[in-house]
Amino acid sequence: MNEQEKAEKIVRHMIEKDEFSRWLGIEIVEIKPGYSKIKMKVRKEMLNGFGIAHGGITFSLADSALAFASNNYGRIAVALETGLAFPSPVYENDELTAVAEEQSKGNSVGIYNVTVTNQKNVKVGIFRGTVYRTKKEFFKE
Amino acid sequence: MNEQEKAEKIVRHMIEKDEFSRWLGIEIVEIKPGYSKIKMKVRKEMLNGFGIAHGGITFSLADSALAFASNNYGRIAVALETGLAFPSPVYENDELTAVAEEQSKGNSVGIYNVTVTNQKNVKVGIFRGTVYRTKKEFFKE
Amino acid sequence: MNEQEKAEKIVRHMIEKDEFSRWLGIEIVEIKPGYSKIKMKVRKEMLNGFGIAHGGITFSLADSALAFASNNYGRIAVALETGLAFPSPVYENDELTAVAEEQSKGNSVGIYNVTVTNQKNVKVGIFRGTVYRTKKEFFKE
Amino acid sequence: MNEQEKAEKIVRHMIEKDEFSRWLGIEIVEIKPGYSKIKMKVRKEMLNGFGIAHGGITFSLADSALAFASNNYGRIAVALETGLAFPSPVYENDELTAVAEEQSKGNSVGIYNVTVTNQKNVKVGIFRGTVYRTKKEFFKE
Repeated sequence: MNEQEKAEKIVRHMIEKDEFSRWLGIEIVEIKPGYSKIKMKVRKEMLNGFGIAHGGITFSLADSALAFASNNYGRIAVALETGLAFPSPVYENDELTAVAEEQSKGNSVGIYNVTVTNQKNVKVGIFRGTVYRTKKEFFKE
Repeated sequence: MNEQEKAEKIVRHMIEKDEFSRWLGIEIVEIKPGYSKIKMKVRKEMLNGFGIAHGGITFSLADSALAFASNNYGRIAVALETGLAFPSPVYENDELTAVAEEQSKGNSVGIYNVTVTNQKNVKVGIFRGTVYRTKKEFFKE
Repeated sequence: MNEQEKAEKIVRHMIEKDEFSRWLGIEIVEIKPGYSKIKMKVRKEMLNGFGIAHGGITFSLADSALAFASNNYGRIAVALETGLAFPSPVYENDELTAVAEEQSKGNSVGIYNVTVTNQKNVKVGIFRGTVYRTKKEFFKE
Repeated sequence: MNEQEKAEKIVRHMIEKDEFSRWLGIEIVEIKPGYSKIKMKVRKEMLNGFGIAHGGITFSLADSALAFASNNYGRIAVALETGLAFPSPVYENDELTAVAEEQSKGNSVGIYNVTVTNQKNVKVGIFRGTVYRTKKEFFKE
């Protein structure tokens, strides 16, 4: 199993057991080592009192992208710190895509930028996450 | 209607129409001008693939607390930027409480710290949000 | 004066009067509308008690890059919120380069990612800033 | 040497060798385990092109407060991630005070809020930092 196959296998395994990502309707678009691209569609039950998507929806998508990118080398990674800026509002039925790109990967810590865009390619979330890379492995080989 | 009554009325109005906060099961504990204390219980469908709460759950609770604190003066406020650190994991059936406290309120911008704790009073989320205060009012008097 | 000339003129004007950026030894490498690339060299007086660069040095360089990118359309912009992750330490005599890239620009708010690298092209700072775009102009034409 | 004496000794040791904190003119006001209160005065050479303090000055003070609070148990701690919001501008001759308060301390990670105020007790910086706690000790006993 090469790095690419391993990355895909790990993310399939992660999402299968991830109840909240499945409630969100997250689908995998592309996985590479240290990278993920995922998407979802905004439903009525995801809106806040202003009739736009709750900030937690955009965050949750970005946070799942972070998890799928930072875990897929094989070592379990946990988020320490995350930040999200909201450049534009998200509406019902918007189709959101999140792309997580590795900025750095040290022995203990990884840093990832995640950009969330809507179906018109407008940026709706600019996210950064810092993860702690544990020594635990997903699979024993 | 004084500031306290107005704050409570606005938050009641906000949560009534906030589908996602209701899906989360958020309940209001206490509202004051520029302040909110809210709580929720973590359900199975909120867990990620590691069997702990998805980071988006803690964020969503904190983000709702931010919205309830920053909007309750009467002017509609929108989040520009948020950050969340995760000191400890959150488990199924945990009862989370979020307290949003105003750090500053200018004409256009407000800054709030939100602390999320579990039923053992362990901190599980340290959040900060910056909001833009629009000129739009909730209610015309 | 086209947008490019205006951007360059504004940044020249800004840095000329910016005492702290000059103490840091910041030099302009490239300016484009909504973009800046700047550099500096780390001196002994910029180190902390561990003998590496104080975190404030990397931040200051990134924050100057944010200012030069977000102000160069002509409207004065002020930072509301910034975040910086530190992937690798910075040493004396390191030559740091910061590149600020616009993520979004709305009527009132702009969001910028800034990446700081050393002379070996190792990332030493991953920064994001959110600015408020005032209605004040640099130059009256 | 009890925890309090150890905390004070470590911070004295840190600041003595911290060239940049000394350039800033930082003075220790109070040290407790996991806590620091420090101050400085803003000089002309710390201003930016708008004639107010460069954002890097407020950040540097907050970052020093973070370092003095998170290192003073004896284990060396390094900042992973920091965030700073700017509620109000800082002017020449302002006297700034930063207070760092521990939010959580785990085996590997600590989280601190730092509030920076001016001489009128107006908040001018709301900062949060996440540190990695190494296994290295300051002093061998």
